[in-house]
Amino acid sequence: MFTVKTPEEAFSVIETEFHPFIPAETVPVSACCGRILAEDIISSEYVPGFTRSTVDGYAVKASDTFGCSDSIPALLTLSGEILMGEEAAAALSAGCCFSVPTGGAVPEGADAVVMIEYTEDYGDGTIGVEKPASPGLNIIYKGDDLVPGKTVLPAGRRITASDIGALASLGITGVSVIKRPQIGIISTGDELVPIDQVPAGGQIRDVNTHMLDALCREMGAGTRIYGIVRDDAVLLSGILEKAISECDMVLISGGSSVGARDAAAAVIEKHGSILFHGIAMKPGKPTILGKAGNRPVFGLPGHPVAAFFITKLFVRHAIAALTGEKYTVRTAPAVLTEALSTNHGRSETLGVRLSERDGRLFAEPVHTKSGLISALAGTDGYITIPRDCEGLPAGAEVNVSFYAAC
Amino acid sequence: MFTVKTPEEAFSVIETEFHPFIPAETVPVSACCGRILAEDIISSEYVPGFTRSTVDGYAVKASDTFGCSDSIPALLTLSGEILMGEEAAAALSAGCCFSVPTGGAVPEGADAVVMIEYTEDYGDGTIGVEKPASPGLNIIYKGDDLVPGKTVLPAGRRITASDIGALASLGITGVSVIKRPQIGIISTGDELVPIDQVPAGGQIRDVNTHMLDALCREMGAGTRIYGIVRDDAVLLSGILEKAISECDMVLISGGSSVGARDAAAAVIEKHGSILFHGIAMKPGKPTILGKAGNRPVFGLPGHPVAAFFITKLFVRHAIAALTGEKYTVRTAPAVLTEALSTNHGRSETLGVRLSERDGRLFAEPVHTKSGLISALAGTDGYITIPRDCEGLPAGAEVNVSFYAAC
Repeated sequence: MFTVKTPEEAFSVIETEFHPFIPAETVPVSACCGRILAEDIISSEYVPGFTRSTVDGYAVKASDTFGCSDSIPALLTLSGEILMGEEAAAALSAGCCFSVPTGGAVPEGADAVVMIEYTEDYGDGTIGVEKPASPGLNIIYKGDDLVPGKTVLPAGRRITASDIGALASLGITGVSVIKRPQIGIISTGDELVPIDQVPAGGQIRDVNTHMLDALCREMGAGTRIYGIVRDDAVLLSGILEKAISECDMVLISGGSSVGARDAAAAVIEKHGSILFHGIAMKPGKPTILGKAGNRPVFGLPGHPVAAFFITKLFVRHAIAALTGEKYTVRTAPAVLTEALSTNHGRSETLGVRLSERDGRLFAEPVHTKSGLISALAGTDGYITIPRDCEGLPAGAEVNVSFYAAC
Repeated sequence: MFTVKTPEEAFSVIETEFHPFIPAETVPVSACCGRILAEDIISSEYVPGFTRSTVDGYAVKASDTFGCSDSIPALLTLSGEILMGEEAAAALSAGCCFSVPTGGAVPEGADAVVMIEYTEDYGDGTIGVEKPASPGLNIIYKGDDLVPGKTVLPAGRRITASDIGALASLGITGVSVIKRPQIGIISTGDELVPIDQVPAGGQIRDVNTHMLDALCREMGAGTRIYGIVRDDAVLLSGILEKAISECDMVLISGGSSVGARDAAAAVIEKHGSILFHGIAMKPGKPTILGKAGNRPVFGLPGHPVAAFFITKLFVRHAIAALTGEKYTVRTAPAVLTEALSTNHGRSETLGVRLSERDGRLFAEPVHTKSGLISALAGTDGYITIPRDCEGLPAGAEVNVSFYAAC
């Protein structure tokens, strides 16, 4: 019978049983956003590579400005103009200054830049400085930001746009990332027809292939679609064998009736071993996790909402196990807009619509009786009610996981 | 001089000045995730399309089971087996039942399904029902989830994987979405060299082209890269004219020194009008927003961190204005790990690294002196300190916006 795991146990089984085996590849920096870093990014250079000014002004020796004021300016000899992208022709001598633009190179010998607003150009080669500068003022020193050997981004990080600047500034044009795990998607069920067909009586469209395809790709995986397979153990076994040989992970959805469920389990067992059969959560209890070699094979419920959440939670975790990705599901507190009843020993995950009023986030649980599709469509995230929870009143605080950040 | 706006005023200018003009296109359902819906998705069908069982069991008339028990089962005549994907050959008569699988069609005349666990098959064509069923038990009625005319997803929504199931179940194979806005990216500065070159003294690599490219695409736009343009008003004017004619929005980054800044403003004004010059925030104060026809033209600071946050906040808002996207930046409370000093009248946005301990989220602000790159690399989100804030102590609660949901 079922070897039912709690969700925590199921996560733990995934971590124990599956390990990174997907090789790295080098992609251009323009294509690396959202990919998983295969190795630490370590600075090989100083950033900035030269000492720079942060303002438009005059590079000076700070000591030459001590004690100056509006009424008694420090008078400095203008040694020249430093242009953007160029170095000073000579070092700065005492009693002198160079004009320097924002981002321009500060010459050797200067230790401060006085903003142009606090100076006066007398037009005769003399600059008056009307405010004393302390050493280091308005200067970014070479290596202030990065020095050779510093770890900038760790292996296992999913690269965001905010990381790309560091790669570009270090001159990294190709980035070593983990290849996208390839996930095979199989739908089973005699009642299924392709989505472009009008279902006859008793038939339904194959929702899961399309939803799981989008979800897996949203999670950074590649997908391979095997289409609809009848409830036939021989057929399913053949397709599964092919999928295991072509993919890094396989999802079989459907087979939710007892006979079909047993057939899916038997077919998974034929090609590997069953790690568990059943997760104590709602929806998604009849989930199977098997292992074929080093590859996860999920038997997902046919119900789209159940298949969605099992994929969002557990297939997500398996992707991270295969790629070495370090990830955290971010949550935010929200106010529940209506009461939720008890769970009878199973944790329950359900989609929510979010709204904001007076700076507070409100979560409206979407739980239709059937919950075929409307329990997902138009939702912004999900909440999980723990299995020991005796129900929640309207107004209770819940933690929402967002589907997208913006 | 500068027409400086508060961030709120800048958002408001964007909403007032820019409006959707980007046309729709039809993409396959497999390619619509992350795109903006051009029109409401309205159900044209019943979902489910027939009345279904949610369990493996027997479809019955509930009234035939009233009063039955383990010791006195209700005895029903088995009229037949309903297979997955098929309809019952006949309606259910009183005193009879059909076996039905999970997801199978419930025959005309039945109003409940008794789970197989509560029945016994006597093998002679008689089924004993040991637990009374109430009408509606274990049944999803036709149209329970969706009925024709119901709005399933609103125009302006960014489609998530959780929405795809609804599209698939309605048989929608092509989805009308707003074309990706094309954003032209221009970097200016005599000090810039392409990232694959080793900068000579006084030069730096062109970080912004690559970072803004990734960020704009992460926000759902397409990009067109115009490369590095010298600080030359004639050259810049020519490139800007070309970019305006080829793109829906243009970003010019750089020109942070006074002379170059004025040149950028003049060139933008030559091709349209300046809406504001300066946002009272840190970093990013010297931001310019112009309008060329119905197209936004941003003059972004050259400093990568400033360019990043102005794009994340204001270019994001302009993308939404052009596409009609309805979006909300989600935030979550976190505990500040160290004190932040006062702002002197400007709101301040800075990147944070996130960690979780004991179920609480901690935000470590990343503020190096120079903040060229390390203020972004490896961060997980950002916080904004309001301009009227007199500094925050370590342990204060701040609201974090995440870069990515997982």
